[in-house]
Amino acid sequence: MIPVPAFFSDYQARVDAELRTLVPSEGEPVQRSMAYTLHAPSKRVRPVLTMLSAELCGETPAKALAAAAATELVHAASLILDDLPCMDDAPLRRGLPANHREFGEAVAILAAFGLLNLAFGTISRQYEPALASRLNRLLSEAVGTDGLIGGQALDLLATDQQISFEILERIHRGKTGALFSASATAGALTAGANADVIAALSAFAKNLGLAFQIIDDLLDVEGNPAETGKAVRVDVKKTTFVSFSGVDGARLLARELCQTANGALTPFGRRADRLRELSAFVAGRNV
Amino acid sequence: MIPVPAFFSDYQARVDAELRTLVPSEGEPVQRSMAYTLHAPSKRVRPVLTMLSAELCGETPAKALAAAAATELVHAASLILDDLPCMDDAPLRRGLPANHREFGEAVAILAAFGLLNLAFGTISRQYEPALASRLNRLLSEAVGTDGLIGGQALDLLATDQQISFEILERIHRGKTGALFSASATAGALTAGANADVIAALSAFAKNLGLAFQIIDDLLDVEGNPAETGKAVRVDVKKTTFVSFSGVDGARLLARELCQTANGALTPFGRRADRLRELSAFVAGRNV
Repeated sequence: MIPVPAFFSDYQARVDAELRTLVPSEGEPVQRSMAYTLHAPSKRVRPVLTMLSAELCGETPAKALAAAAATELVHAASLILDDLPCMDDAPLRRGLPANHREFGEAVAILAAFGLLNLAFGTISRQYEPALASRLNRLLSEAVGTDGLIGGQALDLLATDQQISFEILERIHRGKTGALFSASATAGALTAGANADVIAALSAFAKNLGLAFQIIDDLLDVEGNPAETGKAVRVDVKKTTFVSFSGVDGARLLARELCQTANGALTPFGRRADRLRELSAFVAGRNV
Repeated sequence: MIPVPAFFSDYQARVDAELRTLVPSEGEPVQRSMAYTLHAPSKRVRPVLTMLSAELCGETPAKALAAAAATELVHAASLILDDLPCMDDAPLRRGLPANHREFGEAVAILAAFGLLNLAFGTISRQYEPALASRLNRLLSEAVGTDGLIGGQALDLLATDQQISFEILERIHRGKTGALFSASATAGALTAGANADVIAALSAFAKNLGLAFQIIDDLLDVEGNPAETGKAVRVDVKKTTFVSFSGVDGARLLARELCQTANGALTPFGRRADRLRELSAFVAGRNV
């Protein structure tokens, strides 16, 4: 297992602080339900990716912080939905009982809605209009029927079904790749990066996201709930990269995707070293 | 029963056409689920309110159309959630089986998410950045924990509970008033209206929204499902304005709120006549 890169904890701490400002833990149940999943221990890979991308493009991580927080708000919302009884019916998330087990389904669903809504509101409030508008468009595309929502819907339909590798890939490009890609792109946009730079960072993040997902599938088979914070074998009725390619095949695929991801960083030279560390961390995570 | 105002059908038709462009009915299940509730027969009160408000402020209804559509996207999302088994468990909506009865809970929840997400995306895509940013901020506040989501969460907590009139009012100011108010404000913003005008239109809409909700409560007790498109007595475990004040008291309250709403239109003179017709229609609807 590769340890978390040293620079990571500083970025994570900044993200955590921003999220605590955006979503206080006190208040009505729906407010507490939002805070519950959002503030539970998390690697914050997506927001760190946003901040590293901004920095690579010459912007301060501080400028990217609100956009970074928005990606984590969306991610937390998607976790709450994924765990619902009508979806994966998962008992455990981020080391705690799933949101609906703590707050009930209705409040959990409203909290997920509230987190998505807050992502757009945060961007609108914290950036100058031209950037806010561009970021909200990006986020809406990443979340929509060609992104997170489409991927999750396909995933549900595929439960108990034999599916092709192409469909499996489409599911995870939607469920994971889209928001990873948007996270990197958002960072680049806060820095006013040009289209070539955005395309490279987006390609890096999309492939990294897919690798991340495959490693999640491996952890579902081989992981230790005390380390992953999730129950294992939740996905047993699903076609995963592991059920498709076997443990060794999935490991190989994850490594290849990380190589493809790293390839996209070549034009940036040493400036992209922290993104490479992130990629090595993802590739080596617990497996 | 007061008939739908004559000018209404033209506005409704424009909203319907815009919504059909934004959400095609063909495609994957989640896409069809979004279209199913969105395109089911509806009065389109909120988007018409947006367009009338823009017109009152000297802007064309065409300019307000995307913002108008966004309010209906959000409203449709909230209807899908309201009807879920874990919320009101309603069998019927807009004259059709509730969304989750047709598509299953998981797809219905994703569709609601997709509709909310599309509202923000639509505004970001269709307006110049300064206006888009202002509109998205408005929408996010109307949907958030002080608006729709907060109202719905309070409503759920109040089920089977004795609640005060103040809490009942807070629930419906959140569930209905907030989006009504945002609908009118959005129209005024597309016209670049000043703060006084926005405050007057917002006050009109907020009170009209509350009247609308009370009449919904009356229809739940007295309505005909063939006309309302909803099952009756769904709210039997809830404190409503009718259970609180009786049928006659609720009717009186709705009429008073419409008068308060109309009072806010005084500064506009005859220019607000269509909004007055809308208000008379709401006050007279089926009861």
